[in-house]
Parts: sequence; structure tokens; C-alpha cells
Amino acid sequence: MTMPTEQAILDAHYMARALELARKGHYSTHPNPRVGCVIVRDGQVVGEGWHVRTGEPHAEVHALRAAGEQARGATAYVTLEPCSHHGRTPPCADGLVTAGVARVVAAMQDPNPEVAGRGLQRLEQAGIATTCGVLEGEARQLNQGFLKRMEHGLPFVRVKLAMSLDGRTAMASGESQWITGPAARSAVQRLRAQAGVVLTGADTVLADDARLTVRADELGLDAEQSALAMSRPPLRVLIDGRLRVPLDAPFFKAGPALVATCVAVEEQYANGPECLIVPGEEGQVDLRKLLLELAARGVNEVLVEAGPRLAGAFAQQGLVDEYQIFVAGKFLGSTARPLLDWPLAQMKDAPALKITDIRAVGDDWRVTAIPVPAASV
Amino acid sequence: MTMPTEQAILDAHYMARALELARKGHYSTHPNPRVGCVIVRDGQVVGEGWHVRTGEPHAEVHALRAAGEQARGATAYVTLEPCSHHGRTPPCADGLVTAGVARVVAAMQDPNPEVAGRGLQRLEQAGIATTCGVLEGEARQLNQGFLKRMEHGLPFVRVKLAMSLDGRTAMASGESQWITGPAARSAVQRLRAQAGVVLTGADTVLADDARLTVRADELGLDAEQSALAMSRPPLRVLIDGRLRVPLDAPFFKAGPALVATCVAVEEQYANGPECLIVPGEEGQVDLRKLLLELAARGVNEVLVEAGPRLAGAFAQQGLVDEYQIFVAGKFLGSTARPLLDWPLAQMKDAPALKITDIRAVGDDWRVTAIPVPAASV
Repeated sequence: MTMPTEQAILDAHYMARALELARKGHYSTHPNPRVGCVIVRDGQVVGEGWHVRTGEPHAEVHALRAAGEQARGATAYVTLEPCSHHGRTPPCADGLVTAGVARVVAAMQDPNPEVAGRGLQRLEQAGIATTCGVLEGEARQLNQGFLKRMEHGLPFVRVKLAMSLDGRTAMASGESQWITGPAARSAVQRLRAQAGVVLTGADTVLADDARLTVRADELGLDAEQSALAMSRPPLRVLIDGRLRVPLDAPFFKAGPALVATCVAVEEQYANGPECLIVPGEEGQVDLRKLLLELAARGVNEVLVEAGPRLAGAFAQQGLVDEYQIFVAGKFLGSTARPLLDWPLAQMKDAPALKITDIRAVGDDWRVTAIPVPAASV
Repeated sequence: MTMPTEQAILDAHYMARALELARKGHYSTHPNPRVGCVIVRDGQVVGEGWHVRTGEPHAEVHALRAAGEQARGATAYVTLEPCSHHGRTPPCADGLVTAGVARVVAAMQDPNPEVAGRGLQRLEQAGIATTCGVLEGEARQLNQGFLKRMEHGLPFVRVKLAMSLDGRTAMASGESQWITGPAARSAVQRLRAQAGVVLTGADTVLADDARLTVRADELGLDAEQSALAMSRPPLRVLIDGRLRVPLDAPFFKAGPALVATCVAVEEQYANGPECLIVPGEEGQVDLRKLLLELAARGVNEVLVEAGPRLAGAFAQQGLVDEYQIFVAGKFLGSTARPLLDWPLAQMKDAPALKITDIRAVGDDWRVTAIPVPAASV
């Protein structure tokens, strides 16, 4: 093992702070990435900033404003490569040049094909020293959705499931309310709030009168974060292949929604929610096509909150990036409903998952698991 | 909150050490309890001891021997009230009196009706100061099995289960080997080693050629603990209501075993394993009666390693004290076998559990859960 240089230690220290700032945008920056920036001169933090919302200034702009004249000769730490293109705001690379910073440290390159290294290039051409790849793992984690969309043209799909300790989601009768407790429900509210889309199926909406909204009083966030979350509520998407959910269902009354279906849309939808016709095989909505369309609309993260059938379909089609499984201390028994409708005959077909985290959430437990690609098993 | 006195702080400190010593007997003291002892004089530990095996000296004897003359005027910390009766060894209370200790601190009273406060009483009558109840919770935890047997005439029943993340134990075909990895299997070996009885059913023995033995090289213990564990292997008990398992099965070849059955035992068992005839309802072995018999034979802890049917029967009859569930990062799918055969129709009948611990074991996770009595839900 080689010891890091003192410069590398300091770079990691300030980048960690920039990441902390970036996380303040957890519930509000989408479709933009979450970005934080710290400006340091002579061992002093002279400016900090984070991106709040699309259309508003980027993290670097806030930090440069805070630093003012002190930015001259300073080092700027940014969690994502500064942009080089004119979007809704002027390029940040230019801003850093104008401000006279001497060095820019980025956690990672911007995967946006409109940037992709050109931001750092422009800085170098202006005589600014650049370093890229400091705390890159953490920076990528922060923007999993944005990266998935930029790199694969698909959103990051997180499937939320609530089950008993014996892996069941509801009684055979469908009875299922309140498997988990209030702390777990609050965690689900935060998962909704951070997503660009909350997606569900007709079964869930019909059976539970589900609305899948974000409710400020259940978020368990401080006032600032809560207000930001409520200012950017996720789009609610309903998969309803045969348009079984009536337009007067609580789901539609709760706000704007998008319906993905297989059938030609009838007249009553003229003043109703937008409908996407994405027919797939066997009369089912083509989930992959739907996800591509959502990504094209700028959706970084999709939270799937559905029954075993729809969640199972996402799983079987390899469209899931992460499972968030809330586990209640209960046995629902061997006739209760399965976690996912996914019939498998042989052990060799059993999909492998890596459990990356388990933690207590009130009286329940939350398991984070990611699918392991078949090739790497 | 009142501050503890300095004496109470020191008492807890030395008792913690005594508990640490007691734990060395984790794999070998049964049917006796695990007990540790520390003798302290003028702020110095002058003797330590722990009970190793039934028939060998109690913890106090070892500690007093180590202390020698320095025991005079000292304080003895014992994790269980010193015994007052003549068993295989003379009463420890007398030994403490003879050695001239000035004070005895016990973590808890001995629940053994032959002792039950009389040990402390005898000490007090001899003019020795006594304190009882220091770190009592930890001390009870250490001897859950012994306490259950003394207080209820039943062994502590621990059910080991291995399941996928979606709560399944095997494919519908029965295919099930190696759901969990080597670290989990080693943890199961230690669960077997600490038990007085490892109990299984005919299904498991027939399907998997299971032997349920303890194997020194898989225990993952140091040489001393491993040798102790191997010197006191658990009795293997097979529940085989109709005597379906042939006497030449690997299970019987692997060592002594006890068979619990419903039917009259046939001639071939004359030179075979001992058979207990404990018929219950519907042609099933009476599990409660079997457990009572095992407790009567001095069994403190029973580890149940069985399929969903037998494990489900223990669960349904309220005979389980603790579940140890090993969870593998896999989905086995919705047609795979359930965790427990336990059909339940309504949520109100769903048994509640308290998950007391979850920890990583290699690539798998281990969940400890205890049933919550229906009345306290």
C-alpha cells in the first residue's frame, strides 16, 4: 500500500464536504444531477454551493458568488465535472475561468454526452490545473439515476417491497394493509420523494385505493428538505394494460398522472391523464419501452411500488437496479402471497442478489439488495 | 436517573469478567449451566475459574484454588448463585465459607429448585455479605436453556432455517443444497455444538441423507473450544412417526441417536437406536411430550433443523423460543417451498416476532427473531 500524498488527503476531505452539500439536493434536482461545490483558498473554505433545482444556478455559480474575489487562485472542488455547454444556464467551466481559480478537482467526469470531458478540457486550455476521480465511487452513488439515464438511456429502477419475515406480502385473500410500521412508511415516503417517477399497477390501485403521493407530514425531513421535496413531487405512473382503473379513482384525483396502456385510449381520457400506448407481448405493457420513454423525458429514478405480479415482471425482465425490501417481524404463513410472482423450476435459474445493507427502521428492517448479473455469478 | 455508586460500577466490571469466563463453557457444560467466577481482593483479581463439564469442579472451586490464601476477606463474583446442595461435587457455598471470603456477588439466583436462594442464605448465615442481581440480564441470556428447563420443565427450542431473500427454502422439486455459503454453515455447526439435542425429521434425513453431526474442522473455533465442543456432541434426535428411515441410513451410521415415533417399535431396533414412543394427534409425534422427556433427561437446548413441515409444526404449537434464520442473497421464486408449512387465513392470526438481531455471515445474513406471545401483541 502506498500512502496518499497530503494533497490527496486534503482533496478527499474537501470533496467529502462537496458531496455533503450535493446531498441537500437529494429531493429536488432531478432531472439534473445532484452537485455540490466547495472553493478553498490557502486552507480556508471561501465558498460553498449546491444545485437546488433545474433552471436554477449550478453548484459552482453559488460557490463562486459566495467566494467573490477570493476565488482568484483558489481550488474548486466539484462533485461532477463542470459543464461546458450552454443549457438553461451558461457553462460553469467558463465561470470558473473568469473567476480565476487556479485548480479544479472533480469527483467524476460528466457522463452527459454534451459534456463528457469537455468541461475539464476547457479548463485545462485556460491554464487551470485539473484533477478528476476524487471520491468517484461516492459521487456515482449520489447520482445513480442520472448516470443510468446518461449511460444507458434508462432510468434507475428501484423496487420497493414490504414483506413478512417468511417472504409474504399479503394474505391469500389480499388482506395486506400495515404489514410494516410508521418508520418504514416514512422511509417509503422519502423513497417516493427522491424519485422522478413513482410507478404502480392497476391491481394495487384497485385493491388498495392507492394514491402513491408524497405527504409532507410523513416525510420525516426538516422544513427545508421537506419544502424542496414537495416542490418537485414525482410523476405518478400507472400501468393499466386494459384501462381498468376508473377516472374517478382516488389515484387520479390526487394529482397529475401518466397511464401506460396497451389499448386504444377512449374518449373519456380527452380531459383525463396523459396516456402512453406501449403494447408488449401477451397483452402486457412493454415495460422496457415505457422506461425508455420515461428516460427520454428526463426521469432519472423510478420507484416501483406494485404487487407481486408487476414487480415480478420488472424482475423477470432484468429491469430492476435495486430492491428496497422492508421486512416486518411477522409470519404470514405458507398460503400467503409471494414476494414476487416469478415461478422458477431449478436452482440454477435462481437469480443471485447482493445484499448491500440491512438496517433497523423502527420495529421493521430494511434490506437493500442489488441483482448480480447472471454472467458474474 | 440516579448515578450508580462506585461499588456498583466495580461490581458490574468484575461480573462482566465472570460472564466472559462463563462463556468459555458455551459448548461443554450442559446439562449444567455455564458459570464463571472471579475473586477480587484489594482491587486485584486473585482467582478466576469457569465450569468446564458436568462432573468436574464448579467455577467457584477453580477460582478459590487459584486464589489460595488470598481468598480470605476477598469478594467472589459468580454468574450464578453458588450451589448449596451435594451433587456430584460438594456445595460451593460451603467452599466459599471455608475459604473465608467476606462478600459474594451473584448475577442471579439459581433457578434449580434444589438451590433457589438457599445458597445465598447459607452464605449470609455464615456472616458473608451477599449481593444478587448484578448483570442479571446477561447472565440469564447465557443460560437460556438451563433456565427454561428449570423454570418450565422444557428445553429452550431454537429453530434454524435457511431461506432465500424471498422466504423460500427449496425449489418445488425439493432441490435445496447450498442455499447459504460456508460462513453460514460454520455458524450452524456452532449452533449444533452448543445444543444438547439436534432434532430433525424423517423428510430431511431421507431427502438429504442428513447426518446432523458436529464436525471439528467446520466449527471455526480455536483448538480449546473445538476440543470441548467435540467432547460433548449433541444427541441427534430423529422424529420419524412411521419409522420410514432405514437403519442403514447415514444418519444412524454417524453415531448414537434417539428416534421419536408413534408406532410400536419393530424387532430390528433391538440393536439399533433407542426409540421413544410418543404418539400425538393425527398420527404425528407429540412434540411437547417429546420435549418434556428431553428436558427430564437434562437437555437444556434443542436445535431444530428440519423441513417446513416439522419446523412449521413446532411453530404452530408455540414450542419455539428463537428462530435463527440464515438468509441468502437469492430469489427462489414463487413456486418454491415455503419457510414453514403454516397456512394462515387472516392477518389477525399472523404470529408476531421481534427481530432482535441481524448480522452479515459471509455473503449471507443471519436473522435472530423471537416469537412475541399473542397476549402482548
